[in-house]
Amino acid sequence: MFKHIGLVGKHRVPEVLETLDKLITYLQAHRVSVTVDPDNAHLLSTADIKSADLPTMGRKCDLVIIVGGDGTFLRAASTLVEYEVRLLGIHMGRVGFLTDLTPPRMCVQLDQVLAGDFTQEERFLLHTTIMREGEALSEVDALNDIVAHNANIARLIEFETYINGQLVSCQRSDGLIVSTPTGSTAYALAGGGPILHPGLDAIVLVPICPNTLSSRPIVVDGDSEIEIVIGPRSPTRAQLASDGQITLNLEPGDRILIHKKRKHLHLIHPPGHDYFATLRQKLDWNREL
Amino acid sequence: MFKHIGLVGKHRVPEVLETLDKLITYLQAHRVSVTVDPDNAHLLSTADIKSADLPTMGRKCDLVIIVGGDGTFLRAASTLVEYEVRLLGIHMGRVGFLTDLTPPRMCVQLDQVLAGDFTQEERFLLHTTIMREGEALSEVDALNDIVAHNANIARLIEFETYINGQLVSCQRSDGLIVSTPTGSTAYALAGGGPILHPGLDAIVLVPICPNTLSSRPIVVDGDSEIEIVIGPRSPTRAQLASDGQITLNLEPGDRILIHKKRKHLHLIHPPGHDYFATLRQKLDWNREL
Amino acid sequence: MFKHIGLVGKHRVPEVLETLDKLITYLQAHRVSVTVDPDNAHLLSTADIKSADLPTMGRKCDLVIIVGGDGTFLRAASTLVEYEVRLLGIHMGRVGFLTDLTPPRMCVQLDQVLAGDFTQEERFLLHTTIMREGEALSEVDALNDIVAHNANIARLIEFETYINGQLVSCQRSDGLIVSTPTGSTAYALAGGGPILHPGLDAIVLVPICPNTLSSRPIVVDGDSEIEIVIGPRSPTRAQLASDGQITLNLEPGDRILIHKKRKHLHLIHPPGHDYFATLRQKLDWNREL
Amino acid sequence: MFKHIGLVGKHRVPEVLETLDKLITYLQAHRVSVTVDPDNAHLLSTADIKSADLPTMGRKCDLVIIVGGDGTFLRAASTLVEYEVRLLGIHMGRVGFLTDLTPPRMCVQLDQVLAGDFTQEERFLLHTTIMREGEALSEVDALNDIVAHNANIARLIEFETYINGQLVSCQRSDGLIVSTPTGSTAYALAGGGPILHPGLDAIVLVPICPNTLSSRPIVVDGDSEIEIVIGPRSPTRAQLASDGQITLNLEPGDRILIHKKRKHLHLIHPPGHDYFATLRQKLDWNREL
Repeated sequence: MFKHIGLVGKHRVPEVLETLDKLITYLQAHRVSVTVDPDNAHLLSTADIKSADLPTMGRKCDLVIIVGGDGTFLRAASTLVEYEVRLLGIHMGRVGFLTDLTPPRMCVQLDQVLAGDFTQEERFLLHTTIMREGEALSEVDALNDIVAHNANIARLIEFETYINGQLVSCQRSDGLIVSTPTGSTAYALAGGGPILHPGLDAIVLVPICPNTLSSRPIVVDGDSEIEIVIGPRSPTRAQLASDGQITLNLEPGDRILIHKKRKHLHLIHPPGHDYFATLRQKLDWNREL
Repeated sequence: MFKHIGLVGKHRVPEVLETLDKLITYLQAHRVSVTVDPDNAHLLSTADIKSADLPTMGRKCDLVIIVGGDGTFLRAASTLVEYEVRLLGIHMGRVGFLTDLTPPRMCVQLDQVLAGDFTQEERFLLHTTIMREGEALSEVDALNDIVAHNANIARLIEFETYINGQLVSCQRSDGLIVSTPTGSTAYALAGGGPILHPGLDAIVLVPICPNTLSSRPIVVDGDSEIEIVIGPRSPTRAQLASDGQITLNLEPGDRILIHKKRKHLHLIHPPGHDYFATLRQKLDWNREL
Repeated sequence: MFKHIGLVGKHRVPEVLETLDKLITYLQAHRVSVTVDPDNAHLLSTADIKSADLPTMGRKCDLVIIVGGDGTFLRAASTLVEYEVRLLGIHMGRVGFLTDLTPPRMCVQLDQVLAGDFTQEERFLLHTTIMREGEALSEVDALNDIVAHNANIARLIEFETYINGQLVSCQRSDGLIVSTPTGSTAYALAGGGPILHPGLDAIVLVPICPNTLSSRPIVVDGDSEIEIVIGPRSPTRAQLASDGQITLNLEPGDRILIHKKRKHLHLIHPPGHDYFATLRQKLDWNREL
Repeated sequence: MFKHIGLVGKHRVPEVLETLDKLITYLQAHRVSVTVDPDNAHLLSTADIKSADLPTMGRKCDLVIIVGGDGTFLRAASTLVEYEVRLLGIHMGRVGFLTDLTPPRMCVQLDQVLAGDFTQEERFLLHTTIMREGEALSEVDALNDIVAHNANIARLIEFETYINGQLVSCQRSDGLIVSTPTGSTAYALAGGGPILHPGLDAIVLVPICPNTLSSRPIVVDGDSEIEIVIGPRSPTRAQLASDGQITLNLEPGDRILIHKKRKHLHLIHPPGHDYFATLRQKLDWNREL
């Protein structure tokens, strides 16, 4: 099924290196060609392992296994998505939403995956363009969320939100979270948003501490064109974050254009993957009072 | 465009009768054949007007205009959906979510609609089957929502929820709201749910006063098969409501199967219809503190 | 310290009987006179044990130990509060908010309590009078909460709320929870209310599924006079529950007068009692995503 | 009743100057000695008006009238509280929570106040001391709230909260709002907190976007000693704001000690003041869906 597999690991974590060594031994025994990310390759016990950066890996491999947590997965995925390679995540601690294998069970589950016994799930990203004075200032992709936030905790930002050119609202708040279903269990959840099933083709807008009682998260179709316009009277110190990484400082009048990225992420799960079980396990979903 | 138009009005409301009379004069002047619902027909000032029940109207008309509020629209629509006839709503007070014409502007807007200048929107309904001991006990359609609720305010009901056969949660609460995007601005909103844009193909599940801190509304794909199983230890006095009408008493072990109805509602709007404007007007959406 | 101790147990639970037997042996060994509630007395292994109903127990004992869960405690406390006797709770499962001893540790903790090493906490109750056509129809005491709720899930009730004679709001909703700090971790929490520390002299009003976006729980001084007036247009089928027991059917125009009961509950804790620890343990308070 | 009245106005606002001029004419006609804040005094049309800074005004006047909005009131009050002088607020736009007179009605209402016909309300402030390595680094008073917040929107802060020395929770979030009843209708409300009646002797702790599903605002007695300890692993860029003004940058290990200030604010209202009416007017409290 898979002939060339890339391995990407969280940096400077002994348990990750150990897991990478085990994976190499396991995969080489299954006659799979293995490539490891440059930061980990030279730290491995295994000798003579090929190393490649993410773009090369994306082009050459038919599967990339990411070892770490959901954060490691997010960062690697934002590059690998360009190459449409399949991805599989191994979590070091408890199971993650994106990384649903764990070291104790990974060999049994990889036996299944290598035998072609797996499910594939498509996850979409948000492509964002920031426009300033008519020019595209910056572009960025996010698997979880795009957040416009005040940089000064004591000053609200003011912005208008449009869906497909229609005004949704003019709001003063600490900010706005625009989240994919993948991101709905991350920061959007902390902000009071609903959970969106990962198979849903939808985007949720969650206001952060809005200066109104009559606001609610709103869920729109995944094909919507979302535009956030920072108000002219808004304080200048607003910021944009993509998947939890600050991207740039926003200025009054900046327009943030968000739509679904054309290329999707191809996420692989071993058989028996159960999203709701992960939800119950990770979020203690519906634990009784 | 439309040759045969049916008129349905809220009963026993003088303003509705007055509006129906005006509509008949207007439509007859435009050489449209008009039929009125039996409850209102004999109360009109207009003489010799044809009357027909909803199923006949659904079969014979190419448009039905519903005069009243969202409640009147809901009740008429649940019958008319079977005939795939287009629907248009006129609201007596402020604009409604389903009834977006108002008497002062209706003639101008109907000029446009009769000239073919309108937008059409598809709204889906939820088809629900209640299974008891392996038999289908009852079936019902809802445009807004299906609600399973305790009948005794002092006793929680206990139920399991499944999506496409996968367990979502086992919950004790006052009940569960299963809502369409259309219903997301009705009872689901009062229960703390998000707003779903009416163009979204999704269903939201909103728990009512759940006996847990770790619960949230969850939004799933519109093609999901939803199953609620009333727990065997749950008090017997649970009830099912469809669009705010109590349908039947539930018993422990009852299974409530919910999926999207195959036939959709065809909702007509005059040009310039703006969902978010209605949202801001009706909900005072994002009014400043 | 305590010469006469009463024992009250949840009925028909083998583990409770077992715990009662152990308590009797323990207390008699400490030369304490023991009385048991009539429902459990004749089921005990211990011979010749005195039995008394709750009022008698309240008058004669200087401490009553309640064995069961928070529900058992609530029911016994509503009678015993009249006699100003001290109360101590033993929980059969995990620790409860009112019943913070558990059988494995109870003897060690009772050693401390009998030696006078304990803390005493005052908890207040809500006294409610229902007025109909100028007459007091019924009176009831609640340690947790008073709930006015629609009896028909498909019909909102309409009511006005007054604090010290000032109109707070006119609301249409499924109902209203008026809760003590003790009740703030019970139904009020499920309804979205804040947690009130048990030492706080305050009452919280939590609307249930209000038909508005602009509503919030409101916390008022414990000495407030609260009045709920069921609206004249409200459906007749509204109900009043006190501590989760339905008390009576409400009619349009009924006035529900609520204020703090003069007599308080005297709740005893062994040393080291930690409310926030109970909160974290029971509610999984602040468990990480 | 009042012989020496001070006037404080929002700066550089023509309507405020106009109102100050009217007040001076009105007060001098009532034989009251008037003092104006230095920033406005030299801009007035009235000649020969005495000017004094806030501390002097606090010492010499028996009433200070603040003209502007709630923000102007907050800033003046934080200085004037030290002198225990009575305060009255005039709002330029719609009524405010602290500034409940408006120019059109102010003369009628001042007639009443000068005749001794008013109510006086005590509002408490939070006194905060920031401790670093055992030393008091800074002290500040807040009438609304004290907020500890991450300075980097992409990094959660980690902190422990203690009430009277007992651990409440260890939390990772964007921050924590500690609010008085006065502040409960300001930022704490945007963060999802309950409304606390201004007469309530309580403090509410509202988490901002907590990284957990099982968190809620918690209301504690006004005499509680609150301590927030910034976690040693928390990012260094956390900030403290007092009444919406950033006060200082927090570092890991910093301890924030909060308790009620001994001196209270003495707020004057003309007769007929109705807190709940302001709530309904300002928040659109319980506006129907």
